[in-house]
Amino acid sequence: MGLTGTEIYPKASRRLRLGIVGGGQGALVGQWHWTGARLSNRWDLVAGALSSDPERALASGREWMLAEDRIYTDYAEMAKAEAARPDGIEAVAICTPNWTHRPIAEAFMEAGIDIICDKPMAMTPEDCAALAAKRAETGVVFALTHPYPYHPMARQAREMVAAGAIGEIRQALVEYAQDWATEADDPDSRSLSWRRDPAKIGRASATGDIGTHAFGMIEFVTGLKVAKLRAEFHVCGAPKAMEDTAFLNLAFENGAPGAMWLTQAAPGNYCALRFRVYGEKGGLEWDQEFPEHLRFRPLNAPEQVIVRGHGSGVAPAAERMALLPRGHGESLSDAWGNLYTEIAIAVEARREGGAVPADLLALPDLEDGTRGVKFIHAAADSSEAGGTWQALA
Amino acid sequence: MGLTGTEIYPKASRRLRLGIVGGGQGALVGQWHWTGARLSNRWDLVAGALSSDPERALASGREWMLAEDRIYTDYAEMAKAEAARPDGIEAVAICTPNWTHRPIAEAFMEAGIDIICDKPMAMTPEDCAALAAKRAETGVVFALTHPYPYHPMARQAREMVAAGAIGEIRQALVEYAQDWATEADDPDSRSLSWRRDPAKIGRASATGDIGTHAFGMIEFVTGLKVAKLRAEFHVCGAPKAMEDTAFLNLAFENGAPGAMWLTQAAPGNYCALRFRVYGEKGGLEWDQEFPEHLRFRPLNAPEQVIVRGHGSGVAPAAERMALLPRGHGESLSDAWGNLYTEIAIAVEARREGGAVPADLLALPDLEDGTRGVKFIHAAADSSEAGGTWQALA
Amino acid sequence: MGLTGTEIYPKASRRLRLGIVGGGQGALVGQWHWTGARLSNRWDLVAGALSSDPERALASGREWMLAEDRIYTDYAEMAKAEAARPDGIEAVAICTPNWTHRPIAEAFMEAGIDIICDKPMAMTPEDCAALAAKRAETGVVFALTHPYPYHPMARQAREMVAAGAIGEIRQALVEYAQDWATEADDPDSRSLSWRRDPAKIGRASATGDIGTHAFGMIEFVTGLKVAKLRAEFHVCGAPKAMEDTAFLNLAFENGAPGAMWLTQAAPGNYCALRFRVYGEKGGLEWDQEFPEHLRFRPLNAPEQVIVRGHGSGVAPAAERMALLPRGHGESLSDAWGNLYTEIAIAVEARREGGAVPADLLALPDLEDGTRGVKFIHAAADSSEAGGTWQALA
Amino acid sequence: MGLTGTEIYPKASRRLRLGIVGGGQGALVGQWHWTGARLSNRWDLVAGALSSDPERALASGREWMLAEDRIYTDYAEMAKAEAARPDGIEAVAICTPNWTHRPIAEAFMEAGIDIICDKPMAMTPEDCAALAAKRAETGVVFALTHPYPYHPMARQAREMVAAGAIGEIRQALVEYAQDWATEADDPDSRSLSWRRDPAKIGRASATGDIGTHAFGMIEFVTGLKVAKLRAEFHVCGAPKAMEDTAFLNLAFENGAPGAMWLTQAAPGNYCALRFRVYGEKGGLEWDQEFPEHLRFRPLNAPEQVIVRGHGSGVAPAAERMALLPRGHGESLSDAWGNLYTEIAIAVEARREGGAVPADLLALPDLEDGTRGVKFIHAAADSSEAGGTWQALA
Repeated sequence: MGLTGTEIYPKASRRLRLGIVGGGQGALVGQWHWTGARLSNRWDLVAGALSSDPERALASGREWMLAEDRIYTDYAEMAKAEAARPDGIEAVAICTPNWTHRPIAEAFMEAGIDIICDKPMAMTPEDCAALAAKRAETGVVFALTHPYPYHPMARQAREMVAAGAIGEIRQALVEYAQDWATEADDPDSRSLSWRRDPAKIGRASATGDIGTHAFGMIEFVTGLKVAKLRAEFHVCGAPKAMEDTAFLNLAFENGAPGAMWLTQAAPGNYCALRFRVYGEKGGLEWDQEFPEHLRFRPLNAPEQVIVRGHGSGVAPAAERMALLPRGHGESLSDAWGNLYTEIAIAVEARREGGAVPADLLALPDLEDGTRGVKFIHAAADSSEAGGTWQALA
Repeated sequence: MGLTGTEIYPKASRRLRLGIVGGGQGALVGQWHWTGARLSNRWDLVAGALSSDPERALASGREWMLAEDRIYTDYAEMAKAEAARPDGIEAVAICTPNWTHRPIAEAFMEAGIDIICDKPMAMTPEDCAALAAKRAETGVVFALTHPYPYHPMARQAREMVAAGAIGEIRQALVEYAQDWATEADDPDSRSLSWRRDPAKIGRASATGDIGTHAFGMIEFVTGLKVAKLRAEFHVCGAPKAMEDTAFLNLAFENGAPGAMWLTQAAPGNYCALRFRVYGEKGGLEWDQEFPEHLRFRPLNAPEQVIVRGHGSGVAPAAERMALLPRGHGESLSDAWGNLYTEIAIAVEARREGGAVPADLLALPDLEDGTRGVKFIHAAADSSEAGGTWQALA
Repeated sequence: MGLTGTEIYPKASRRLRLGIVGGGQGALVGQWHWTGARLSNRWDLVAGALSSDPERALASGREWMLAEDRIYTDYAEMAKAEAARPDGIEAVAICTPNWTHRPIAEAFMEAGIDIICDKPMAMTPEDCAALAAKRAETGVVFALTHPYPYHPMARQAREMVAAGAIGEIRQALVEYAQDWATEADDPDSRSLSWRRDPAKIGRASATGDIGTHAFGMIEFVTGLKVAKLRAEFHVCGAPKAMEDTAFLNLAFENGAPGAMWLTQAAPGNYCALRFRVYGEKGGLEWDQEFPEHLRFRPLNAPEQVIVRGHGSGVAPAAERMALLPRGHGESLSDAWGNLYTEIAIAVEARREGGAVPADLLALPDLEDGTRGVKFIHAAADSSEAGGTWQALA
Repeated sequence: MGLTGTEIYPKASRRLRLGIVGGGQGALVGQWHWTGARLSNRWDLVAGALSSDPERALASGREWMLAEDRIYTDYAEMAKAEAARPDGIEAVAICTPNWTHRPIAEAFMEAGIDIICDKPMAMTPEDCAALAAKRAETGVVFALTHPYPYHPMARQAREMVAAGAIGEIRQALVEYAQDWATEADDPDSRSLSWRRDPAKIGRASATGDIGTHAFGMIEFVTGLKVAKLRAEFHVCGAPKAMEDTAFLNLAFENGAPGAMWLTQAAPGNYCALRFRVYGEKGGLEWDQEFPEHLRFRPLNAPEQVIVRGHGSGVAPAAERMALLPRGHGESLSDAWGNLYTEIAIAVEARREGGAVPADLLALPDLEDGTRGVKFIHAAADSSEAGGTWQALA
């Protein structure tokens, strides 16, 4: 991320063709993908396997205005059919439950289609290795949808850390708090049914769902790897089969300690992804619920509130993501838009052979996805062992 | 706005065809229109007269991925050509300087094309009357692009006022503060050249540019008309030909007093559109730079912070505009998306004959545009006369 | 206020003897005086005419732990008796309704006792002139109790303006909003009975009560005199005999415009004295309900939050008032303490002949009190005349 | 704390006589004691052993306006001399380094003088037991100076928890962050010299200094005991002999988990004592740097901001501590004042035999002090053992 110039994203010459798997009626995350894709103005959504239920697939596909012959009920069929079309999709967004990510991604990679995959990327580190092998074999783009680093002021924090604004990092805290699991799960919720089943969600629930975001963010902002961690899993909301809350201790590769708090059972917290990073010379604090404002706290000087926009000390890599003028608020939709812009640039570069400046993109990829899965396993291992330290290789 | 049910916006059956006039390279407001249109997923942008300069028009049109034969340099030609095509545009977004709104709107209305017009709608009340006559004659949809009421929590405030949450309104304050006119204008700025010329911008500068937003917002939220006002225009930033600041006193139709502060020369204010409305039983406060949070201050009880989302006391008319779950921030892009959704519903209803529930839409229209122009004239009259009261018929 | 060194307040060698008139049981403002006096550790409260009702005077005096022979029911008797004692009071705090300030102050001045007087200082400019004449004749100290400028961060704002941090001032807004007059007055309230009677409170109610604070603050912070103003008085709460709300326009001596909003009928506002001052190079914003934080908004640079404390850019004149370390909150009690410290220094200097550095004190005095009364009269004149401009000589 | 009425603190009939040990020139904490004592208006400071250095003791004593014959250099001598005087002190405030608390308290208890002791109360649990035995033997009042629970809105939180406003507590977080230890210690600092020496400060530095406040607060607010904890000590600021940072995990007696973060090396944090407590039905959040505002987050309803003052849902036990009207800010000085008021009531009750309503006071005492010391030892034990769980009996 050593950008010092004012490069902006290269313009697109055309919109790319996007397909989607999952995300049918009632599903939330598919909407975000499509929102980001539309905002970026670099994608047309043209095909989808929105449900394995034919009626629901058709209804969803019509809502998304897909041509009827490109509304599928089976992802494998979709991969084949689309690969065979001259106007077939160029990338697929995978918005399905965790346990299906690997087979779906493999099917599309084999069809030569670029991958846009939800997190957590897979169920196990072995799955991740298999995906990495397939990626190496097929040469496709593999993007992981971590939208939060695409908030410009989160990016600004990373840039400031990298530029030494707060000196060597000495401690860092990150948290992601929600409240929707405080009460008992709705037994009819299709979304929740698989989130409480280790066979479908993996070894952790909240830790996988929101913990991977928190983990990805703190490594992103600090530029440091978490070397080891320990974790306690808890059920703090209504009784349920898997954890809704976790308290973690972190040790970064430079020896700095850290802490992570994850919960979906803290009333009044909605999407409270927050980090606080402190170094020898200052601190940086950010809250996803107020994404336009980064608090920079230099030692022995007044706090500065850096607001998204152009100029006034905003780094080029953050400016590039700011579409609206300062104060004309951007938010999570816009972050998804930025993410889909970078994905489009990467996909177009692969397909058109265009050169992308080496330091232009910071696309979360297979490596980030693999770290996220290792994070989940290390946390689960630690919690099961009573809170022992676990290395994160 | 008497909605008490949970009606949601009707789904679109197809995307509508949109054209744009103005908004070429370097222009800001065209981007917002297109952003809103994309986010709504109800529009395809297919034609544009993005500049009268052929080279610039072509470059801009390519950037927006228009077909070359639908990149125009002349709006009148565009209106005719598009009207003649079977796949011609169904609505046009007019994003040009104020003085051109009337002729452009007239040309497209005559061609039977629905109108999406920037504010201020026109130069004079006479222009407004002419537009209204043409609108009546042609029967097109005429939407005015006031995006701020499409922030769900501004809508929530209106709903709460209408439902009596704060009782009879007794006073109201509104302000819109920016800082970009603190320093001398860039002499090379194409955007600024016409903003300091009464022949092109009309009788006021800041008062027209941001004052119409503040005026529209305070009438929208209170549900009350401003009966009269008085104004002082000032230059508080670097010397310039027209006012960058205005202080106004308001008298609402129910006798309640109010105040409005407008400035583009208050350092550190970016897009600070804020209202504070107080009634017999409580108050409501909102700030566009923190659009997700509405502060409700009931008398003799703790303040409540109402956060955009579903449930927890959010009114149906505000819920309907909330796409993301609470805390997963929405902002100005999303407000433009909501506005373009409502415009699409109105346009589709006209074209397809679909029934729109009478109370579903609250689309700013010609009447709002006319009030905005009258507001500008009354303010200019007052300021020129030394701050006398001027009726707003 | 040209302090550039780090002078601190000179230490006291003894506590001064303080008397109080008014402020008996149930009265609020007397408590604040005594709180400030105690906090400063420079005063002993030894005498009082706390009520004209003997029983209530005695009860109040015992509560305040006065010796019984120094509990008076008549201020004139108190002035004489105390002047005759070798251990008589050295200063008197006058905490009575407005209309009594002049005769009480005159009685104590004649007795050679220093004056600490509530605002508004008197009923009319003529009263003010009479007090000034008596002050000149007797040579006593005359302090006016404006506590808000004794919040260190309000002082910091003044220092920054004086040092040019925001350049020439171009506009300034001040407001003081409360909500206690939203509902009908309690007919049994002794405090309210005189606040609605022009014969006792003077020509204005809210404008005198809280407006003088707002007016004093904005002249204090900007370092500019208000040259003229216009005003509208309104009743926005329950019906009452005098205004509970006022909207004012200001013109400062340098030509900069300003606005003032005063209300005691805005639900959810408690003691919301706020200023926003903008110059060529930046802005300063402060809110009495969050007194520890001054927002400095330099043009084209991130906002800074200056927190009360020592170092980190805090000016000496503000540092001097900060007793607790940064973050260990100070508030209105502490502001009263700072005020009573400065009063004690002035009183001790007069009595002991000690030299006070010329630029150490910024004590609000007779001149400030006179301006406050002129402000009330100009505002009332303007409102009665329909909002005409009135000069503030 | 089962108060449901509106009892207020009983009035004092006279001021009590207070002595102080420690707190001479340059010492901070003595100022706070004396500030609180003055504000309460229930104490006269009449004697002190402000330093063992005669010159410094004299200078400090004069500054505090003590009679010269009551300025001591030796606490033992002071205890004896004051006990022998008919006007001797009734209570002593002990503001010295940790290791001296026990012998000083013992000397004054033996002299029959009531004790006001800084935290941590002593060096070891054995010291605590010895103090408890001496307390039982002498029957004196023993108050521990935890001022933060005397912020009315912290008290309000406790009352709301006790009244079931948030239901059964399911998790709780507390933190106390400062930044003064980020840089290297000043080698000339008298205050720091003993804070880095385990023989003088005890087994922990930051954990004892600020951790005891955080620990006391979280037990106070939740009404739950911490059953066990684990801790990691770190040096995150400049290298130093003892920890400046600690991360702790808590397990409350009801099984709820918790976390504590303590640091004196987080730039931009000054006195950031904050708690967040979540139950089945809601949450409560408070920040000492904004002490007037308690955030109540009921599940499925808008957040409420409860502001210190009278009425509007404030519990009697919090109202009783509120002197100024809502919005007329109170802060840490006022909290110390409240604490000294309660101490005075307890001391007066012992000396005068007055009946104190059983539920009026919530004075932190020997038991709280003992828990604080046990907390320090458990944390140190855990950290030394690599983060094992340690019971807090």
